[in-house]
Amino acid sequence: MSCSTPDAAQLDGAPAAVLTVSDSCARGEKKDLSGPAVEEALKRRGFRVSARGVVADDSSTIQKKLIEMCRSARLVVTTGGTGIAPRDVTPEATRAVCERLVEGIAEHMRAEGMRKTRFAALSRGVCGVRETSLILNLPGSPSGAVESLEAVADLLSHALELVAGKTEHG
Amino acid sequence: MSCSTPDAAQLDGAPAAVLTVSDSCARGEKKDLSGPAVEEALKRRGFRVSARGVVADDSSTIQKKLIEMCRSARLVVTTGGTGIAPRDVTPEATRAVCERLVEGIAEHMRAEGMRKTRFAALSRGVCGVRETSLILNLPGSPSGAVESLEAVADLLSHALELVAGKTEHG
Amino acid sequence: MSCSTPDAAQLDGAPAAVLTVSDSCARGEKKDLSGPAVEEALKRRGFRVSARGVVADDSSTIQKKLIEMCRSARLVVTTGGTGIAPRDVTPEATRAVCERLVEGIAEHMRAEGMRKTRFAALSRGVCGVRETSLILNLPGSPSGAVESLEAVADLLSHALELVAGKTEHG
Repeated sequence: MSCSTPDAAQLDGAPAAVLTVSDSCARGEKKDLSGPAVEEALKRRGFRVSARGVVADDSSTIQKKLIEMCRSARLVVTTGGTGIAPRDVTPEATRAVCERLVEGIAEHMRAEGMRKTRFAALSRGVCGVRETSLILNLPGSPSGAVESLEAVADLLSHALELVAGKTEHG
Repeated sequence: MSCSTPDAAQLDGAPAAVLTVSDSCARGEKKDLSGPAVEEALKRRGFRVSARGVVADDSSTIQKKLIEMCRSARLVVTTGGTGIAPRDVTPEATRAVCERLVEGIAEHMRAEGMRKTRFAALSRGVCGVRETSLILNLPGSPSGAVESLEAVADLLSHALELVAGKTEHG
Repeated sequence: MSCSTPDAAQLDGAPAAVLTVSDSCARGEKKDLSGPAVEEALKRRGFRVSARGVVADDSSTIQKKLIEMCRSARLVVTTGGTGIAPRDVTPEATRAVCERLVEGIAEHMRAEGMRKTRFAALSRGVCGVRETSLILNLPGSPSGAVESLEAVADLLSHALELVAGKTEHG
């Protein structure tokens, strides 16, 4: 890998999608606050949010939605289902649809998160590559999700360039 | 995942088990100092140590014992076999009996351990979930084991609540 | 694992191999600067570089070369192909030929690398054990490769002793 300086401008308006993973939001028992909060944060970073969705904590449903969202979005961000409770299956669903993982992004989100709360260590979120899209798992709380996104936001634009093959590598 | 503030009191007296993994201890050639040291540290944290054992560095033996211990203990802690020597197989045995790993706990143990000794980077210990129990691999030396446990002890009680499904998540 | 104090002298002259992974270097379109830079760094650390090679970013070619190099070298270091571009497959090829990974070494390389550039988080390099050899993935740029190697160099000699079974463990 040869790292060129990232050109944030190149990603202006890059299509992103936001997927909220929550049983109670999917059943309409709870209002989804995390999805809109993540969407706002992505827009501030120059992304164009072209798709959004809410699904239950069910692995095959999550996988289907991730695959569908990757067809049009370059960055697919999930919120919820990254913990260690029995119904938390977002990381497994994400691994299942990704060709490769970017461990360093997940490590960095946890390390940064632990500066605020030690419980960030319990987030099992991953970041992976599917074809030319990047999938990023954020925790379920609105503040945790936005803070985790901010912690890696400047890495994402560079990562998206590399995933698309825009590199002197080769 | 929605993180409630952990209530340490809820785990007072939660059953824990300690498994020493060591060929020489299993053969009776060496006295097991790490197991009792870990047991003491768990008691100081409010756990009730209800089972203990010593097994050789053999993957299938370790797996059988972990499965048995998880039937009654909420937290199963191993000591030994986490290094990179040919006989170190505790992490592999643990992965084999766990449904999911909590990478952040292992990362945090290593990062904290490296403040004392750079060789903590060579510990391959993992933390995983089996049904409603948590399995945690600690290194083999008494001091290394206790220090690693202390580094993540306050995470464990919260993690055990989440594993049991005590969360507003859903 | 019982950690004895590492004896650097024991590895004086230990055989190492350097594998440059780069399509353009393999085609002769670009001069390989990273391989020689890594070789120099290894010599400064007391290793004897007994083999070197340049291969394209092709997984099966990389795997064959790693297997061959591990027959004679105790430490096999790769440079290149650790990023997230479509052709970056060195970590996958390395995993495929290793019996076990040493996650802490990769984590430490990334954490140290991020002190210089945040983009070090995007390096997916791994460190693994194949029989009694260690394989270490470094990034592709000469400076990134040498800095990553230096970040873990003092761990390597100790790790090589443990891989060879030189430990009181047992």
